[in-house]
Amino acid sequence: MSVSMSDIEAAAARIRAAVRRTPLLNDEAIDAELGCRLFVKAESLQAGGAFKLRGAMNALASLDPATRGLGVVAFSSGNHAIAVARAAKRFRVPAVIVMPADAPAAKRSATRAAGAEVVLYDRLTQSREAIGAEISEARGLHLVRPFDDPDVIAGQGTCGLEIAEDLEAAGVSPDAALVCASGGGLCAGVAVALQARFPGVAIHPVEPEGHNDLARSLASGRIEVNPPGVRSICDALLVERMGEHPFAILQDRAREGLTVSDAAVLRAMAFAALRLRLVLEPGGAAALAALLERRDAFAGRTVVVVASGGNVDGELLQRALEAAAAA
Amino acid sequence: MSVSMSDIEAAAARIRAAVRRTPLLNDEAIDAELGCRLFVKAESLQAGGAFKLRGAMNALASLDPATRGLGVVAFSSGNHAIAVARAAKRFRVPAVIVMPADAPAAKRSATRAAGAEVVLYDRLTQSREAIGAEISEARGLHLVRPFDDPDVIAGQGTCGLEIAEDLEAAGVSPDAALVCASGGGLCAGVAVALQARFPGVAIHPVEPEGHNDLARSLASGRIEVNPPGVRSICDALLVERMGEHPFAILQDRAREGLTVSDAAVLRAMAFAALRLRLVLEPGGAAALAALLERRDAFAGRTVVVVASGGNVDGELLQRALEAAAAA
Repeated sequence: MSVSMSDIEAAAARIRAAVRRTPLLNDEAIDAELGCRLFVKAESLQAGGAFKLRGAMNALASLDPATRGLGVVAFSSGNHAIAVARAAKRFRVPAVIVMPADAPAAKRSATRAAGAEVVLYDRLTQSREAIGAEISEARGLHLVRPFDDPDVIAGQGTCGLEIAEDLEAAGVSPDAALVCASGGGLCAGVAVALQARFPGVAIHPVEPEGHNDLARSLASGRIEVNPPGVRSICDALLVERMGEHPFAILQDRAREGLTVSDAAVLRAMAFAALRLRLVLEPGGAAALAALLERRDAFAGRTVVVVASGGNVDGELLQRALEAAAAA
Repeated sequence: MSVSMSDIEAAAARIRAAVRRTPLLNDEAIDAELGCRLFVKAESLQAGGAFKLRGAMNALASLDPATRGLGVVAFSSGNHAIAVARAAKRFRVPAVIVMPADAPAAKRSATRAAGAEVVLYDRLTQSREAIGAEISEARGLHLVRPFDDPDVIAGQGTCGLEIAEDLEAAGVSPDAALVCASGGGLCAGVAVALQARFPGVAIHPVEPEGHNDLARSLASGRIEVNPPGVRSICDALLVERMGEHPFAILQDRAREGLTVSDAAVLRAMAFAALRLRLVLEPGGAAALAALLERRDAFAGRTVVVVASGGNVDGELLQRALEAAAAA
């Protein structure tokens, strides 16, 4: 089962009341400096601070009411956690969220603030999938997967639909789109929506160094696995392997995957704060980092960058600003 | 000569192509925490990083082409400087901007990047009005005033028009609007636009401690002057006295002026960054600070806060985050 443009349009209609239409930012002064035409989709301004509400809302809205009424469970390092908690609150159903104990404090408190029960686990010794499955079975809660689910992918695709609508209204045709990826749900959904309107647009997934399973999967033609234990500041982009649905979609649609270092991500966070006036979390700044590090490759092109989220602890934002000031 | 809603609607039509429609942000989780219904107008995301482009574009667009073609001059601590430089660039006419030597580096470089000639002066020993008048006369350049000009006020009013349209679309009627003020142009324009749609809305100007001439002017019924030499981190909100046109408008329309401390502004900057994911400069966070400091006064109310700008140096944003972490 794949995801089509009509699935995404149906999702957009379904989630409209709960989801914010985020701005697509362009600035002539920045374009002149970078030597390309840059459009930044500010999903950091989405309700809950990340694109994830789109997929979670569509998944819950697509459940039959009896199933949904029993409640939902999800595992997530943070943004999917917040999104499922918010979506459940909107439908007035209980939510249990399984989160790593080292998730950012901002994400843990936002999940609890949305009314969810939070179960913490140890990222290094426990399996979140196993804990999630156990809770789902024991308590009769529907498991809302973070990316390997067509309803979730269609929901994330509404981000791409808005980009396409705004570009069309501005009379602009994009050459490329850079989209961060871990499970691949956002990237797959955006690829379907953007290519429906702009068939030639090059979709580049962006991953942190050491977690580039998606780039390697696209290159090898089968799902590759990340080595365990590699650290990255991009807490939102750390999965063992991408989803099968996203892989099936992106195999036909994506170009070369790009990889970014922690240092490049910190520079992009500072650029976003001081030039775009956007607070981005590391994962949310990864696609922008890929562009800033490869200005020559995108010179003269029209490039969309998805700034996917902004749930960052103050200490890390400070670190990005300090690094930029020292450079 | 006053400013009417039809002047603001005409300005909106005139500047539409050059100005970004900025989002009006609302978040249920934040509303629950603050105990009020908060709508934040994110003018920090305006092109050039502040609302000032609205007034500058309307002023230049309203000039006869022969006058405009000779070029323009403006004096400003930063945001009006950037705005006039950008507007002049758009009309392909020369711009000379008189800026204090201690203006934030981000604002000086953005003004130069827009192609303007920057003339620096010493805030303590020189008069920017005198320098601006001298350049205007010597070089035949039209002086674009920062606030005491009906065309500028009508342009700033388009910010209020967008707020009114978005609130109406959401079926929401505001009880109060908090708007930062120095010269009073933004506050006056927003007051006209908001009260045209919502006659009962209470408009509260917000000023930094030691620079509350507007609050005192409203109370006394005549334009009051700030004492010289009082420091504030709100570089965008420091004028000796408000404008006569804004005073005439606000005298009939504004309620009590509110005052905020530097410490409250730093807290509001951190709140904006970590909860709203918006980078605000001190002046841009002043209205939010007024709300956060007076939660009891606005409990249960629907409140609009204008976040007027985001042109801040990284060091000051770091300082706000550090202060919040230490609290």
